[in-house]
Amino acid sequence: ADVENGRKLARQCSACHGKFGLSKDPEVPNLAGQPSLYLEKSLKDYRDGAREDRRMTLISEPLTDDDVRDLAAWFASIEFNVVTPD
Amino acid sequence: ADVENGRKLARQCSACHGKFGLSKDPEVPNLAGQPSLYLEKSLKDYRDGAREDRRMTLISEPLTDDDVRDLAAWFASIEFNVVTPD
Repeated sequence: ADVENGRKLARQCSACHGKFGLSKDPEVPNLAGQPSLYLEKSLKDYRDGAREDRRMTLISEPLTDDDVRDLAAWFASIEFNVVTPD
Repeated sequence: ADVENGRKLARQCSACHGKFGLSKDPEVPNLAGQPSLYLEKSLKDYRDGAREDRRMTLISEPLTDDDVRDLAAWFASIEFNVVTPD
């Protein structure tokens, strides 16, 4: 996968998912650090109609499998840490 | 929402999603710090059939709306920070 290409493609995602995958909308998930296989499946499900969302169905429609792989690799590459609750 | 109740209910999620929402399976998303509205919608979509997954459909089936709200509040409460890429 080409993470840099994914990063460029991800510009169209940043309005809702944030520049580095930190969501700006309580109905929109964070993408930072999500496993790439899960991200690939989600994108393909939106693109192929197994999953529906007004915005995601539109945005995913033109994506090729390579685009999906690169986008997933980019967001999966973003490092994050979790503060373990007591 | 009752975060403590959500934490108890989340024991059944930890096998795949990890004790604190850090996924143990490349096909399974992290839940730590995800916005609660998104988590609520996902759980209800699995429970009500708008979204399908072998494991999630089974696990979400018995959940009440209160269970869904508490589970979402628990995972959303886990602090999540992104390390901004260069």
